[in-house]
Amino acid sequence: MKHAKHFTPIKSPHLVPFEGEFRLKEVSHDPPPDAPKRHHCEREMRDRIEEMQKLQSRLYADDAYALLLIFQAMDAAGKDGTIRAVMTGINPAGCQVFSFKKPSAEELDHDFLWRTTKCLPERGRIGIFNRSYYEDVLVQRVHPEWLNNQRVPGIADLAPDAVFEDRYDSIRDHERHLARNGTVILKFFLNVSKEEQRQRFLDRINEPKSNWKFSAADIQERGHWSDYMAAYETALNATSRPWAPWYAIPADNKPYMRLAVCDIIAARLESLDLSYPKVGNEQRAMLLDAKKHLEAEA
Amino acid sequence: MKHAKHFTPIKSPHLVPFEGEFRLKEVSHDPPPDAPKRHHCEREMRDRIEEMQKLQSRLYADDAYALLLIFQAMDAAGKDGTIRAVMTGINPAGCQVFSFKKPSAEELDHDFLWRTTKCLPERGRIGIFNRSYYEDVLVQRVHPEWLNNQRVPGIADLAPDAVFEDRYDSIRDHERHLARNGTVILKFFLNVSKEEQRQRFLDRINEPKSNWKFSAADIQERGHWSDYMAAYETALNATSRPWAPWYAIPADNKPYMRLAVCDIIAARLESLDLSYPKVGNEQRAMLLDAKKHLEAEA
Repeated sequence: MKHAKHFTPIKSPHLVPFEGEFRLKEVSHDPPPDAPKRHHCEREMRDRIEEMQKLQSRLYADDAYALLLIFQAMDAAGKDGTIRAVMTGINPAGCQVFSFKKPSAEELDHDFLWRTTKCLPERGRIGIFNRSYYEDVLVQRVHPEWLNNQRVPGIADLAPDAVFEDRYDSIRDHERHLARNGTVILKFFLNVSKEEQRQRFLDRINEPKSNWKFSAADIQERGHWSDYMAAYETALNATSRPWAPWYAIPADNKPYMRLAVCDIIAARLESLDLSYPKVGNEQRAMLLDAKKHLEAEA
Repeated sequence: MKHAKHFTPIKSPHLVPFEGEFRLKEVSHDPPPDAPKRHHCEREMRDRIEEMQKLQSRLYADDAYALLLIFQAMDAAGKDGTIRAVMTGINPAGCQVFSFKKPSAEELDHDFLWRTTKCLPERGRIGIFNRSYYEDVLVQRVHPEWLNNQRVPGIADLAPDAVFEDRYDSIRDHERHLARNGTVILKFFLNVSKEEQRQRFLDRINEPKSNWKFSAADIQERGHWSDYMAAYETALNATSRPWAPWYAIPADNKPYMRLAVCDIIAARLESLDLSYPKVGNEQRAMLLDAKKHLEAEA
């Protein structure tokens, strides 16, 4: 399966390399210098979405690949807005979004990959995870004291680092298994700056209609910013692989961020060389026969 | 996690070694010479089930481990009867049996581990798989022409052997992940002989009350006996591991087979050293307080 089309990642300046040398400090929160201006981004976005609609219809008819899109980011980076912007216009029959929040008691009673596995997309569909099993190596890495919420036997005797090494391993194995079985995986880290998050939080507080988006926990987690960045960097390095690449998208400029995500998804679908199923001789004969019957009814 | 209790397999003459040197031709379909006689087997079985009831109640209260039992075998080897014999008497609230038959269209539209993953047991419970994802490396290995029922992209360009190597790899990764996260795995191959299957098929045909158990497909699959044995041997060698061992249980003598399975399960549960949760000082104070209130009501 090493040669299947979706094992070669889509090139992008935002691709996280597979050798574990990615450093968050070395990438920008702003669009690259040659990026189109805001107005151009929005126009290009409209074209790209039209293209995506055609590609999704072929993905559905071809019925062999599933597309899994994973979004992870700090609060207010723009996950919901990006998912809305990229997927609005796509036939909802072929696309499902799942948001993973605090795990339920039933979910904690299973291994950490269980709750998302149930929600994996079928062949021909697009599945979107707004947060995912990566929470178990991000939030939990920042708060190792929460590891005990899951009653995994023996976990208390292990150094947290060893637990996370095992989890990266489980995630790599899981994604490779999915890829081998026809799931195309794209992972997006929306890379917002601490200053831009501050501005967006203030906007949420100042604008009554946005107040519901803000909770006291958001400020608490912001207090762990550098721990989160370390957790993201380690997780991205440990799990960016050709068949399940991470893209770290600059997130301080929303139109550029959305276009960059859309570009990568469209290029990935384009690369699969999807086609409408060919009709064989037998089926063609059936179609002609049916036509004769229908015409004779008149 | 290498030192967790359930990473050391329960010893048994029927344990399939982890070095890939297991040969079906070298193991017997009959009980070992020192096995208890039929009558003794049945009596020991009753004792063992009583023990299991206590162990399961502790597994449930301890709420950290899940126990997954996988049964695979040729037709008429005694899977259903063994599951019934071993589990009758166990509290059904803590035990669920799933039988996996021909996959549905929705199941074929996912990777081959998806349908069983949904049914994995929660912490504190026993989950029993009557057939499992191993069908995808057994029946499918005997009938590689069925591989195309699942529209996995690129699969037609691969040699079937490469597909199965990938699947063993996926299974090993999956089981190691589950074990690391607290699932105790035991796998039983009920090893019936071809002659004993012939007798049992004839019994099913001669006894009108058993006719429903027999289908024409059973004879067809019997025709592939040696292919099946090769597929079992390869799969057992590829996937018997300390944290997910296979046991090849002689199946020509039912009382012995059932006792051997029951012995291994009971020994595994025993080895986990399960205990009822301890009550802390705070909770004891709460209990005493509640007691005072209840007594004051009188």
